[in-house]
Amino acid sequence: MKPVRVVLDAMGGDFAPKNEVQGAVAAVRTLGSRLQLTLVGREADLKAELAAFPESGAITIVHADDVVSMDDEPSSIVKQRQSSSLYIGVERMRSGAADAFVSAGNTGGVMATSTMLCGRIAGVSRPTIGSFLPTKTGRPCLVVDVGANVDSKARFLHDFAVMGSVYYRLMMGVERPSVGLLNVGEEPTKGREVVREAHGLLASANINFVGNVEGRDILSGNVDVVVCDGFEGNIVLKFAESVLGFLKEKLRRYAAGGLVQKLAMAVVAPVLRSALRDMDYQEYGGVPLLGINGVTIIGHGSSSPKAIANMIARAVDVVDRDVNGAISAAITAPLKKETP
Amino acid sequence: MKPVRVVLDAMGGDFAPKNEVQGAVAAVRTLGSRLQLTLVGREADLKAELAAFPESGAITIVHADDVVSMDDEPSSIVKQRQSSSLYIGVERMRSGAADAFVSAGNTGGVMATSTMLCGRIAGVSRPTIGSFLPTKTGRPCLVVDVGANVDSKARFLHDFAVMGSVYYRLMMGVERPSVGLLNVGEEPTKGREVVREAHGLLASANINFVGNVEGRDILSGNVDVVVCDGFEGNIVLKFAESVLGFLKEKLRRYAAGGLVQKLAMAVVAPVLRSALRDMDYQEYGGVPLLGINGVTIIGHGSSSPKAIANMIARAVDVVDRDVNGAISAAITAPLKKETP
Repeated sequence: MKPVRVVLDAMGGDFAPKNEVQGAVAAVRTLGSRLQLTLVGREADLKAELAAFPESGAITIVHADDVVSMDDEPSSIVKQRQSSSLYIGVERMRSGAADAFVSAGNTGGVMATSTMLCGRIAGVSRPTIGSFLPTKTGRPCLVVDVGANVDSKARFLHDFAVMGSVYYRLMMGVERPSVGLLNVGEEPTKGREVVREAHGLLASANINFVGNVEGRDILSGNVDVVVCDGFEGNIVLKFAESVLGFLKEKLRRYAAGGLVQKLAMAVVAPVLRSALRDMDYQEYGGVPLLGINGVTIIGHGSSSPKAIANMIARAVDVVDRDVNGAISAAITAPLKKETP
Repeated sequence: MKPVRVVLDAMGGDFAPKNEVQGAVAAVRTLGSRLQLTLVGREADLKAELAAFPESGAITIVHADDVVSMDDEPSSIVKQRQSSSLYIGVERMRSGAADAFVSAGNTGGVMATSTMLCGRIAGVSRPTIGSFLPTKTGRPCLVVDVGANVDSKARFLHDFAVMGSVYYRLMMGVERPSVGLLNVGEEPTKGREVVREAHGLLASANINFVGNVEGRDILSGNVDVVVCDGFEGNIVLKFAESVLGFLKEKLRRYAAGGLVQKLAMAVVAPVLRSALRDMDYQEYGGVPLLGINGVTIIGHGSSSPKAIANMIARAVDVVDRDVNGAISAAITAPLKKETP
């Protein structure tokens, strides 16, 4: 298999370039010849960070003077920040010098720049971001969209469903993942007008559509892919991420009650942490921007070196499994045959 | 203080009239002379259930032949089900024979019948339902709306904010509760178009508006009242209710790992349960339908006797604290003075 050429925005995250470089080194160690890695950023800084690692020889550096901050206006980057690590990294992917782009930087900026430079896969109305959440059964649930789009039209929701279904199939190895439409009741007549319209589109799409699902169905493991507008998707995702902090505080107060409580907590805390940690997508290792002509993986600003390494590994997987080829085929596929 | 006249739909819930009668008896025991309680339902059934309790003498029974089921069309009840316990109960409140109505029955039916018979408080665009969620700090967060309305206009969101603020103030004894608008980012330019419009209305309303909040701010305790459309409110609420089941399953698997794990679990499980139980509004004891000329408290179909008793107690509180009088004053209050 040809190595996958990944370019990492080494200046993106809150702890850049330190975490980016450490994550890059870990990825090179793990992925070996499957990966050909390029770091974009201030050359002198990156060289200094890399010097300590014997793996530095396997990593290419491309210099970029400028760094986009978390506060920069996403849409301005393509016109005004062409010497930034973000722009130069995406541009390498667009030009064909790289297969995938990874960044823990300004999320809106990464989305806008990737979409504007690379364009959408033919037939895709809007690129989207999906995120895996853990479930009761252990088989994760992909929620899509989690914030790339708000006020999505029914056609956009249809495209999120098709892309989410393809992504789940290829990443999880599930032939016909079940797809549910997030709503406030099971009946097709329930909910927002745009969601009722989307219900019709999803029912005739060539996916394993199981109808409306509710907020409780995400963690239950009843359904593989949950489709929604990025507004409620983002709200649910951020709520989910906050559950661990909430419980930690409740348990901290409890542990203060005495020695028995403290001991019990010491035993149980790691279990809770591992069950809830997966709700936080920086631990999971980034999310792909689905639907563009390219492979962009987006992570939290506070990504750890481990999260950066996971993001790079995910980029390699998305390229290897040809997610974009499958999206391209599925988005233009004919409708399901009507069943009498 | 005059006793509050509460009428209970004794046939509403999934375990009616058993749980309703047991809850009614518990409420009479706790509230004593503050409460004057009437049960509506099949007289023979209610008499049989009540017979075992010495408190039965303090409870009035009003006969109703018909029972609305969970599957009945909400809007049809006013025209077609006038001999149902739901209709007769609400009608007693409308006519002035009762101050408050409590039901664990068909939620949509209770809302529609209450709104159609009693009408809205002058100035209120849409009645709403809010639900308290627990937070890190211990001071609950009221999420409003949690499912009474979808596709809410900006004006509706404004009214939810005003009513939520009044309800929080009177029920929690907090003078100027902070009010946040649920969104996907802090900047006023973020999110759905209708939410951006609502931001302007809330900023000039006479409430303690703190701007946009995100999904994570609900459990953090950063804000007292979170305003949203019933679509995302319902989704977040049902997601929250499902967290306990999710964790129980994770911990059950863990406890199966051995004796130490089992013992630790036995100690910690009650803490988790108590921390997460409050996310489930049937435990909390129902939610009020705010904004109607009347006091309607709505509970889960599966309400326990304890939940029914809590709902009756809540009805008494809402009447005693004159929530409707305060809503009426606040909804027509002049805008905040512009600050330079």
